[in-house]
Amino acid sequence: MSDETRLIKPRSISGFPEWLPHEKEEEERCLSLLRETFRSFGYTPLETASVELTEVLASKGVEEKEIYDLIRHQGEGEESGLSLHFDLTVPFARYVALNYGQLAFPFKRYQIQKVWRGERPAQGRFREFYQCDIDVVANGPLPLEYDAELLEVMATALARLDVGRPVFMVNHRRILDGFYNHLGIGPELRPAVLLEVDKLEKTGRESVARQLQDKLSLTGETLEQILHFAALRCDPDGLPDLLRALEVKDEVFLAGLAELESIFALLPTGLGDFTYNGSITRGLNYYTGIICETLIQGAESFGSVCSGGRYEGLTRLFSNQELPGCGMSIGLTRLLAWLFAKRDKNTGGRSSPSEILIAAMPSVPHSELLLLGRELRSMGLNVEVFPPAKLKKQLAYADRKGIPGIIIPNDDGSFDLKDMSSGQQARLTREELVVRLQAGR
Amino acid sequence: MSDETRLIKPRSISGFPEWLPHEKEEEERCLSLLRETFRSFGYTPLETASVELTEVLASKGVEEKEIYDLIRHQGEGEESGLSLHFDLTVPFARYVALNYGQLAFPFKRYQIQKVWRGERPAQGRFREFYQCDIDVVANGPLPLEYDAELLEVMATALARLDVGRPVFMVNHRRILDGFYNHLGIGPELRPAVLLEVDKLEKTGRESVARQLQDKLSLTGETLEQILHFAALRCDPDGLPDLLRALEVKDEVFLAGLAELESIFALLPTGLGDFTYNGSITRGLNYYTGIICETLIQGAESFGSVCSGGRYEGLTRLFSNQELPGCGMSIGLTRLLAWLFAKRDKNTGGRSSPSEILIAAMPSVPHSELLLLGRELRSMGLNVEVFPPAKLKKQLAYADRKGIPGIIIPNDDGSFDLKDMSSGQQARLTREELVVRLQAGR
Repeated sequence: MSDETRLIKPRSISGFPEWLPHEKEEEERCLSLLRETFRSFGYTPLETASVELTEVLASKGVEEKEIYDLIRHQGEGEESGLSLHFDLTVPFARYVALNYGQLAFPFKRYQIQKVWRGERPAQGRFREFYQCDIDVVANGPLPLEYDAELLEVMATALARLDVGRPVFMVNHRRILDGFYNHLGIGPELRPAVLLEVDKLEKTGRESVARQLQDKLSLTGETLEQILHFAALRCDPDGLPDLLRALEVKDEVFLAGLAELESIFALLPTGLGDFTYNGSITRGLNYYTGIICETLIQGAESFGSVCSGGRYEGLTRLFSNQELPGCGMSIGLTRLLAWLFAKRDKNTGGRSSPSEILIAAMPSVPHSELLLLGRELRSMGLNVEVFPPAKLKKQLAYADRKGIPGIIIPNDDGSFDLKDMSSGQQARLTREELVVRLQAGR
Repeated sequence: MSDETRLIKPRSISGFPEWLPHEKEEEERCLSLLRETFRSFGYTPLETASVELTEVLASKGVEEKEIYDLIRHQGEGEESGLSLHFDLTVPFARYVALNYGQLAFPFKRYQIQKVWRGERPAQGRFREFYQCDIDVVANGPLPLEYDAELLEVMATALARLDVGRPVFMVNHRRILDGFYNHLGIGPELRPAVLLEVDKLEKTGRESVARQLQDKLSLTGETLEQILHFAALRCDPDGLPDLLRALEVKDEVFLAGLAELESIFALLPTGLGDFTYNGSITRGLNYYTGIICETLIQGAESFGSVCSGGRYEGLTRLFSNQELPGCGMSIGLTRLLAWLFAKRDKNTGGRSSPSEILIAAMPSVPHSELLLLGRELRSMGLNVEVFPPAKLKKQLAYADRKGIPGIIIPNDDGSFDLKDMSSGQQARLTREELVVRLQAGR
């Protein structure tokens, strides 16, 4: 770069979060645990392009989102016809339709990628964030075992992330549909009602009741029944009694209830709380079976960390084929932003993956220390060798980066192994040193 | 999505590569090996926003690249002032300047992210690809040990990727500068000469000679010396003799030579070939010390898989502080595209991470198989449990996805463990099964 360049004040860009090294290290840990968990259930990794054709993302069938279009800087405003994807669901549907003949079904995939929302900058609103999705898609009927599996995968993942006890709040679109049939509220009014009911956990009964009255003119017994239903909560075991007590004879309702009972029966115990929750409706109209949102116990105000459900015909935009699917998604960036905000920005976490720093000493040939570093790395340790410098400077470096162990070579060929947290130090021969560190693995 | 939506023919977008599942699995393996390797040398993960301010990327001091600007789709062409980054170097420099007070120096980071080039669509040209960078930046003098370390890290990484034997072709900017001082070719003409010389490996001596003559009017002894120098090749051991034989007295030349000798002395043996190569110049004018490009033996026509070097004042665009750095980069997407193209698109590689498929049988309670799956997963195995279906269908699924082991439950409580590749099958009790699979880890 030329010296005459004027200085540009570096600044962060609102809505595009960037972590400090110790925070990014924690994000890496989370990404790695999610990948491992998804893989352990046989989900295969998938990555789609960051862009889709603008006509796809802005088409009528797709939920309306704020999107970013791309233009070539050198192209004088010429449109590229490309936009950054706003979620991973539309790209996944397009990928499945495009590669249909080369995929083995049921196709189970995980997809961990950034997504973008072309919103105006605003406090606390992310314009770039990680979404971590799992989906199963079949080219025939998709057994309910997969709905249960998705809940189990996400419960396992959240338990491993160790972010608090998740409460999976599950409902079923057919239970909702059947119940509204029973009330005589038809498909025209239903989406608007569900939209209001969905806010119950956030805004409370009073507010929802007012909206249903004022906006949708619902009153009396109908309003009472809607609010009563939305307030239903129970453990999986209590589901049959709770819902049968409503005495709804609608067939869609009963079929949905039977499905949800089957799914609940397959869930593991001890990983998280699975509950039935009558207020969960999920705004997106492509859901057709179970729907789920997940709160963290004690951090309910944060909102849902994991959501999804079953859908039919997701690929309908691209293909006449019906491919039923089921998927769930974790919004990792938002979750991490919340965890990081809870604690002091500068504390906690190491800012280096190094487990050992080999200190350099003028009296010891550097090449021998490099050889020692290579040997320890081949044992699976993360090791860095510092270039020749004053010992004090090297210790300060290890301290600042949170490197837990230091090896200090001595003139007589021995090594001091120092534990940075306890301050304990042991003098060892090279052989003893290697054996000690091998044992510590 | 509504039923009335017109169908959109799904298509891939030129320059935005997407892999099939077995290919993505291989990319994941590579990404994971790169992360592990970088971490084993104490490099910390870093991720910057996908965008930079357009004024930064399009500013005079930055190498000119085709970039994509973002506009809000709903914003009626209103400019966001943001562009997708075209490499990870400018973002890294901005990040270091922005977070200077909170970083511990020397700051060693790896950064594996997608980058974008706003090029017109063309055969074989990537508009989105993974770049895998490591850099060390100091807030004082940066010891030469780091230049050597970077070469060692990348040699280790490429060896683990197992893509063929890498040949690291190293040169030094001060050796070049000193040599051109000696020839009397000043800083005005030099960049143009280096640009031509840099093409020697690709286009050959004839072509470079012609360009130097026609474009830059270089002839006679000067031209001969430039071509002679560019053709110099040797092992690290041969460097002193080879370059001293040129009898260049220029101080910059001798200082560069001494530096390169020191760096070569620290390199490991057996990981790859490190060679001196007089034709390596690296076009980017911010390099100030070692420069490197890397070919794969037997696949030289593919071009450089890994390149980089030392630079001073990278953050100069943002700060008056001099922060010397050294970095190298692997272009993973291009490398994988080449590897995948070498073999049949539909062969090789498993399209599932599952090691075991537990087949479901109508006579065995599904919940017991789910429990077995959980137990095997807790041992670190990737296991999927198939929903109840005909055995033939389950075997075909495992075969198509390349799942190597199948567990088939029997009515009497025993299990058949079947090796899909050998066809061998063993009948085991549940306890024996778990022990056998534990031992196989």
